[in-house]
Amino acid sequence: MPSTFPDVSKIQFEGTKSKNPLAFKHYNPDEVVEGKTMKEQLRFSVTYWHTFRGQLADMFGVGTAVRPWEDGTNSVKMAQKRARVAFEFIEKLGAPFYAFHDRDVAPEGKDLRETNRNLDAVVKVLKEEQARTGIKLLWGTACLFVHPRYVHGAATSCNADVFAYAAAQVKKAIEVTHELGGAGYVFWGGREGYTTLLNTNLKREMDHLAKFLHMAVDYKRTIGFKGQFYIEPKPKEPTKHQYDSDAAACLNFLRQFDLLPHFKLNIETNHATLAGHTMQHELEVAGSAGACRLSTSALGSAAAMVTSSAPAAATATGFANGSTTSTFMSPTSWSSRATRRPTRENPTSTTVGEPPSSPCRCR
Amino acid sequence: MPSTFPDVSKIQFEGTKSKNPLAFKHYNPDEVVEGKTMKEQLRFSVTYWHTFRGQLADMFGVGTAVRPWEDGTNSVKMAQKRARVAFEFIEKLGAPFYAFHDRDVAPEGKDLRETNRNLDAVVKVLKEEQARTGIKLLWGTACLFVHPRYVHGAATSCNADVFAYAAAQVKKAIEVTHELGGAGYVFWGGREGYTTLLNTNLKREMDHLAKFLHMAVDYKRTIGFKGQFYIEPKPKEPTKHQYDSDAAACLNFLRQFDLLPHFKLNIETNHATLAGHTMQHELEVAGSAGACRLSTSALGSAAAMVTSSAPAAATATGFANGSTTSTFMSPTSWSSRATRRPTRENPTSTTVGEPPSSPCRCR
Amino acid sequence: MPSTFPDVSKIQFEGTKSKNPLAFKHYNPDEVVEGKTMKEQLRFSVTYWHTFRGQLADMFGVGTAVRPWEDGTNSVKMAQKRARVAFEFIEKLGAPFYAFHDRDVAPEGKDLRETNRNLDAVVKVLKEEQARTGIKLLWGTACLFVHPRYVHGAATSCNADVFAYAAAQVKKAIEVTHELGGAGYVFWGGREGYTTLLNTNLKREMDHLAKFLHMAVDYKRTIGFKGQFYIEPKPKEPTKHQYDSDAAACLNFLRQFDLLPHFKLNIETNHATLAGHTMQHELEVAGSAGACRLSTSALGSAAAMVTSSAPAAATATGFANGSTTSTFMSPTSWSSRATRRPTRENPTSTTVGEPPSSPCRCR
Amino acid sequence: MPSTFPDVSKIQFEGTKSKNPLAFKHYNPDEVVEGKTMKEQLRFSVTYWHTFRGQLADMFGVGTAVRPWEDGTNSVKMAQKRARVAFEFIEKLGAPFYAFHDRDVAPEGKDLRETNRNLDAVVKVLKEEQARTGIKLLWGTACLFVHPRYVHGAATSCNADVFAYAAAQVKKAIEVTHELGGAGYVFWGGREGYTTLLNTNLKREMDHLAKFLHMAVDYKRTIGFKGQFYIEPKPKEPTKHQYDSDAAACLNFLRQFDLLPHFKLNIETNHATLAGHTMQHELEVAGSAGACRLSTSALGSAAAMVTSSAPAAATATGFANGSTTSTFMSPTSWSSRATRRPTRENPTSTTVGEPPSSPCRCR
Repeated sequence: MPSTFPDVSKIQFEGTKSKNPLAFKHYNPDEVVEGKTMKEQLRFSVTYWHTFRGQLADMFGVGTAVRPWEDGTNSVKMAQKRARVAFEFIEKLGAPFYAFHDRDVAPEGKDLRETNRNLDAVVKVLKEEQARTGIKLLWGTACLFVHPRYVHGAATSCNADVFAYAAAQVKKAIEVTHELGGAGYVFWGGREGYTTLLNTNLKREMDHLAKFLHMAVDYKRTIGFKGQFYIEPKPKEPTKHQYDSDAAACLNFLRQFDLLPHFKLNIETNHATLAGHTMQHELEVAGSAGACRLSTSALGSAAAMVTSSAPAAATATGFANGSTTSTFMSPTSWSSRATRRPTRENPTSTTVGEPPSSPCRCR
Repeated sequence: MPSTFPDVSKIQFEGTKSKNPLAFKHYNPDEVVEGKTMKEQLRFSVTYWHTFRGQLADMFGVGTAVRPWEDGTNSVKMAQKRARVAFEFIEKLGAPFYAFHDRDVAPEGKDLRETNRNLDAVVKVLKEEQARTGIKLLWGTACLFVHPRYVHGAATSCNADVFAYAAAQVKKAIEVTHELGGAGYVFWGGREGYTTLLNTNLKREMDHLAKFLHMAVDYKRTIGFKGQFYIEPKPKEPTKHQYDSDAAACLNFLRQFDLLPHFKLNIETNHATLAGHTMQHELEVAGSAGACRLSTSALGSAAAMVTSSAPAAATATGFANGSTTSTFMSPTSWSSRATRRPTRENPTSTTVGEPPSSPCRCR
Repeated sequence: MPSTFPDVSKIQFEGTKSKNPLAFKHYNPDEVVEGKTMKEQLRFSVTYWHTFRGQLADMFGVGTAVRPWEDGTNSVKMAQKRARVAFEFIEKLGAPFYAFHDRDVAPEGKDLRETNRNLDAVVKVLKEEQARTGIKLLWGTACLFVHPRYVHGAATSCNADVFAYAAAQVKKAIEVTHELGGAGYVFWGGREGYTTLLNTNLKREMDHLAKFLHMAVDYKRTIGFKGQFYIEPKPKEPTKHQYDSDAAACLNFLRQFDLLPHFKLNIETNHATLAGHTMQHELEVAGSAGACRLSTSALGSAAAMVTSSAPAAATATGFANGSTTSTFMSPTSWSSRATRRPTRENPTSTTVGEPPSSPCRCR
Repeated sequence: MPSTFPDVSKIQFEGTKSKNPLAFKHYNPDEVVEGKTMKEQLRFSVTYWHTFRGQLADMFGVGTAVRPWEDGTNSVKMAQKRARVAFEFIEKLGAPFYAFHDRDVAPEGKDLRETNRNLDAVVKVLKEEQARTGIKLLWGTACLFVHPRYVHGAATSCNADVFAYAAAQVKKAIEVTHELGGAGYVFWGGREGYTTLLNTNLKREMDHLAKFLHMAVDYKRTIGFKGQFYIEPKPKEPTKHQYDSDAAACLNFLRQFDLLPHFKLNIETNHATLAGHTMQHELEVAGSAGACRLSTSALGSAAAMVTSSAPAAATATGFANGSTTSTFMSPTSWSSRATRRPTRENPTSTTVGEPPSSPCRCR
């Protein structure tokens, strides 16, 4: 496949004096800080959704992302091509990791069998690209919130069929993450919560969620997947009350259902502030949980994976335009988030350009 | 056209003891309260967007609205059919008014000429239905926020072409509102605001907005439209700072640019609370502005039109399912809002069903 | 002692038609609801602080409470007199319970010995009044936040002397609660939290807090106190992060340190909303904890004690003026809170009158 | 009078490498930036309340400030001594300005005559100290919120006597500011707002407030005071709704009542964020008002005076302890704010030490 970004070479560290918009000013991968290189300390990852799938739409307008490589279809072929574009982007950016939702990388089919087949077809390409570039998978996850079937939750849905479908989807997502050598697997309970207590049995839904996660833990063992399981706390959206609202709520749940030995937390800056806390607080709470496998550092980062967004994070779009470069760094993962339209979590947005070709979206 | 809701008769007042889900429990149109009938006091209006166009999507998932009459296209023919469905709904509900955005009722065409032609084709049907039913237009408005051209604002866009296009769109929307005998015309500055002050000349953008509104005032005079102009205050979304953030900010702007004699405020409950105020406060501020044509009542409602949403407002969908009826009333307009997915303004949602057939959306 | 409220008789239930300001309109103590009298269902309690000690001051002004029976001193004699006034008030109001902080009912002395002696002197009066009226103690608690020694916390203070002093104070408060036949004992970690993580070892402070509470549990056993221990969740004030920020955070802590069998939660409406939740949510979380001794009702109230305030709650002051009566009811306790100046928790206030005579205040 | 801080010399600029806690690291008064010295650009002022009067109390505990020079009285003599201590502090800090509320510098007497006499006695000392040091008065203001008489407002009180008393107090405060050569005079409507609209006639109260301010403008002319009048926007505390809630609300009010030519805005960072805005936004709104006497700079600072607090601002207490120095700078005034207990505006606090000797407090 010809290069999508032919005019862009690998982004280099050029120091704070550089005026080159496509250069790192602060991130020098080989510089040793506290006994490790910055690359080892800061395990940057490009998240597929933020960078390649978000359309920069909001509740008040259609998307504005410009991605010249898109052909306007949501086909498997386009998904495979997109994967190769993504790896060219990540490779030139110099990020050691990437991360994805299942529905980001491959389209939903007419039934589970076709959907899984679609996923396999793209995973094949991802595998080739991982081998070609040395870029690794930081985590995989299943998108259990975009499709209308999940309107009332996945593991906490009032519909047993939905629970079963979600379980099948997670099963496949763990398999694929395992196949790609993923370092971890993330659960974000996108619609696990309630709109009103008037029609919700909170206790029962929590039981279902615990059951669901225990099944995932069992299956992980069955197939020999050694990656870390994570829960990603987030409050308030899309449901009125998200069960995984903050670190303390997640830990309480994990303790109650004997899941703490199997999970760590994936802390996100905007989620922390949306919960009325600070990022540091959430890290500290996670770090003090006393159930981490790794040793605990000052701010508890060993107990938690960090996800963040940046006001001016590099985007594939911006990259294509040669107009921006990433200057954002966070301890263990790298959300090279396409700037997008506001949710509560991301109240600020900057957008440019034309309407999107695809209505699909994940978190 | 055959009835879309053949099993539903006109909704009647049956009192608080009624168990009939399709009956009014409190709203008795002919009951006299403080010298006027409830129908005269409470000038309920069904808003086209909330009831017939919102897909019940959110930032985390596709729409779930079920509307059996939709054929999956965004054609003029479908728009005309939808208008007749809407009037059957409004008539059976017994609301004396409706309200719409231009892009709700008719699809965007390939250029302004085609777009206007589309609108005219549907307005013809609306006119017939108004005549048939006696239902009147409370207000019209132009949707200046969904299309990507408005990404940086309409009257406050940095692009002169966008200003011109928005002006042409508003011109047509006022003409159509006039033609349909609309009692008012509303301006919601959906994208009039800023994402960051770093690239915004606030003073200049306010000047442009004032210029735009003066042009609208002039044109209203030119064509002899006698309806009231309204500005609808709303803060925080979709831009970080909306210029029309609350009643006080709107009044300050209107005073500064000598527009106060020409505008009143269209106060919305959720917008008031989103601004950190109460609905009562915003009404009081509007009412105390001393620039109202009408006499001022206790809470200043004479200076303001009231828009509200209700947790369990009647929806065309629910109506079709025979499962809900509207028990919501507000002083002068009636947002029979389809329950929808969360924005900041509407943090709670209840949704059911299948994905939407149309990607189009307005506020 | 002569009556303090000679013109007020016992408040009677007179029904919703009554125009008598000193009558219950809804609360009929003897009316059976769901198999129990309202008095049994709604275990109203008058909280000493809210009703007799708060000065109605705020951060921007001195207090405005008017209490003609106060002599302007903070003496033991005044405290004893105040206790008799309180019981006349509670008796006439018909509340079956009262509740207090140690420093509400008796003044701090020059050292612990004198302080305890002061408390004993007033407890003697409380005991007499309980016997005379049949009013019972719902809970006692220790005020570990007003005195400057607690500026950095009590159990979580960086100063071992403060930990010891707090332990001694709690010991005495439990003894006194036991002596008065209290149904429960409440811990509100008023200053257990942090201002900044930069100088805080969160994990260590949580360990200290757990140690402190285990000591209390041990001592309760030692002296044979059978009342229920409660923790009262509250976020954000007075420290930036309160360790007991919400129900989930409390439960996580109680589970982590094997304290869950010994504690239930004392849920407060304003604390719930301040945490970004609803009262119903917090009750539901507490009720679903699976560690309650009592059976769980629909909203989990069995797992939690409920504390609430009301905009127009009866106050001793208003009572004296004959101008207000309490129409506020909540399931198991009754905060007859003197309307007071704003904190974050209580953003609204209505105050009248003259400056306070005493600078002392508790929560 | 002997030195209060004998071990502290004048604070010098020593650059960013200095480890001296009592040295400026960034503020070099004589360094020219954009054509003016930093001293001229940054017109730092020490605010009397924040530095010498706040007790570091909060709603949940008594004060903890340590000020060895205080004798525990609220006498005129103590006030005169405190003024000399303040000037030693300000002089050693090198701030060119100070600012005060009338009740900060001198105690309330038994009536207006005595109160004014008290003020005159201290003003005499302030004048001497100004002459001795060359330090100037940036602004004076009247404290219309601490005394119980102002419980329902000053200019917007429902009590005509309170309006009259407030007017007399402002008259004296303007005279004293004039006498001391103050560069400006600030109005903070501390209790001008409402707790509930149910008992408030907002329109009438705004009329009263406008009348009050017009009287102040007239009196300023009468006595020839040339300083600038400012209104300080602040929302939410202490009343539920403060009339001067943000810059837009103030400007709307000033335009409505023809006061805009006579007032500028005194913008405060915490007040801006409490209103849901940013400091930059509020400055921009003030700057774009088009009614400033001075030319408008990029962020409108010409139209506004800036007040800010800093997490580690220098305090007289800290200064005495030799433990902190001010590293805080803002464009035109300098709030050397004693770190204090939380209000909504100041959610974080760090406090040390012993209880306060004096109950008096102003904003």
